[in-house]
Amino acid sequence: MRYYPDPYKAIDLSALIDAVKAAFRDHGTNSCQMPPKTYIDLPGGDFRTMPAYVPGLKSAGVKIVNVHPDNHQHQLPTVMALTILLDPQTGEPTAILNATALTDLRTGASAAVATEALASGKGGDVGLIGAGRQAAAGLRAIAKVYNILGVKVWSRNEHNAEKFAAAFPSYDIRVSNLKAAADAEVLLTTTPSRYPLVQDDWISDGTHINAIGADAPGKQELDPRILARSQIFVDDITQAVHSGEVNVPLQKGLLLQGDISGTLGEVIIGRKRRETPEEITIFDSTGIAITDLAIASLAQTYSTYIDLPFNL
Amino acid sequence: MRYYPDPYKAIDLSALIDAVKAAFRDHGTNSCQMPPKTYIDLPGGDFRTMPAYVPGLKSAGVKIVNVHPDNHQHQLPTVMALTILLDPQTGEPTAILNATALTDLRTGASAAVATEALASGKGGDVGLIGAGRQAAAGLRAIAKVYNILGVKVWSRNEHNAEKFAAAFPSYDIRVSNLKAAADAEVLLTTTPSRYPLVQDDWISDGTHINAIGADAPGKQELDPRILARSQIFVDDITQAVHSGEVNVPLQKGLLLQGDISGTLGEVIIGRKRRETPEEITIFDSTGIAITDLAIASLAQTYSTYIDLPFNL
Repeated sequence: MRYYPDPYKAIDLSALIDAVKAAFRDHGTNSCQMPPKTYIDLPGGDFRTMPAYVPGLKSAGVKIVNVHPDNHQHQLPTVMALTILLDPQTGEPTAILNATALTDLRTGASAAVATEALASGKGGDVGLIGAGRQAAAGLRAIAKVYNILGVKVWSRNEHNAEKFAAAFPSYDIRVSNLKAAADAEVLLTTTPSRYPLVQDDWISDGTHINAIGADAPGKQELDPRILARSQIFVDDITQAVHSGEVNVPLQKGLLLQGDISGTLGEVIIGRKRRETPEEITIFDSTGIAITDLAIASLAQTYSTYIDLPFNL
Repeated sequence: MRYYPDPYKAIDLSALIDAVKAAFRDHGTNSCQMPPKTYIDLPGGDFRTMPAYVPGLKSAGVKIVNVHPDNHQHQLPTVMALTILLDPQTGEPTAILNATALTDLRTGASAAVATEALASGKGGDVGLIGAGRQAAAGLRAIAKVYNILGVKVWSRNEHNAEKFAAAFPSYDIRVSNLKAAADAEVLLTTTPSRYPLVQDDWISDGTHINAIGADAPGKQELDPRILARSQIFVDDITQAVHSGEVNVPLQKGLLLQGDISGTLGEVIIGRKRRETPEEITIFDSTGIAITDLAIASLAQTYSTYIDLPFNL
């Protein structure tokens, strides 16, 4: 059994995006087993268990990931994760990966896959609502598939936005107020907000929004009126209804499940698509286990590991 | 983060039984979070994901365990397992335990807890239907709480029963046919059978049966008529209905969910009990995640470990 302490280090970003795209294709064709995440509430947060099996990858396993919003008090990240891989033929555990940074990378890669498939054009401005690890991973991944002209970044804490901008000197990047940051061809929202930050009248026709932040019941970042006039593609229907950007508007009756256009997987296999250049598209991402399996499998081919005894 | 390669080695059996009993008490008082196991089908078997949180133990985590019946062809056990523990306060993964042998130990300990709580007397013969790892762990654990006068062991493969008997020279132990093995004050059934092995007219009044083998839909070891005339206590209602000894009779309408007397947890807290010396009691065990957490927490206090870097 192998332990991979830092599998994010050597990973190739383009190969990662391809692997995540392949996972969405498997989801679109129903070529995988993936029950919805299981949530367990803990004193300072929660943890989620995400088992899956992707026959095409010969990959089975589980990601275990927590969300503890006050972890900065303990000098720990909000989100930490492990992925366990099993041999599908025998069930033997073969690998344990530190999936903390991998989780950011796969979320960023999912946004890139959605942007490539759904954005109205091939290039434009990118607006970042939130300036944390997911924003950084998303920006780097989107840059692989989209011609970024300028970047506008907003954070509740302006100092964080400035630090973020300084970390990306090769971009034409500006710290912006919320409204200005929302005025972009591609948006990436990555905050833990529980009320709408992005207002309806700020969003122009043709915008593509990657709504990443909402991943638990009660979370939302977008004015529900934006959702009402958009084509919404989710990563997984069950998970999105439970905990995605759509969960609060659905709960309040401001949106119906039938208003969801489909899944990103259906877009990747060509069954669904952006219909006009003017419409707004939303990718509602909750994070799906098969993308975690895909990048764990990929990371194994690049990364150093520690051999662990597994006595039987 | 610590990896425990052989946490079963140094564990104290009486402490283990106490820990498992405490977990059942927490289950009886509803002082835990434990969603039902999630099953994923694999080519040669399946794997189960078992998350839980026990506030009283300050323990949160997940057991991942496979069942691949043909693994002997690969010189591997049918069942292998890992348990991952998290710090409930921060969600940080703190320990990974090889839980393969621990799983046998906790299953054996659960049978001991049930036997102590439900057997008609304090001592008698023990009948073993099945002579594998779970039978060995169950016998050792039951011996801690019950005065074993004699042991009768049956296996489909008589050679296995002989090997089993030879491994327990300190007991008055005999290899028996199925009917004779079933004639005992305490029964322990641990086979992967998919049809009833133990017939109704072989079972005397006052017998206590630990029904361990059935842990997936379609599995059963006991004639449903035994269940119909017994007090049945399950480890967890949802899991038992899905995959315990009761699952096939319920499916066929030979048993109603209302015929289940309660949970072992309710027995441990004194809310339910054996009512008369003559009645037959059945403990229907599917294996519950909180007992895995309990023994993982205990094993940490005894066992050696390997320190693993968990880079953030």
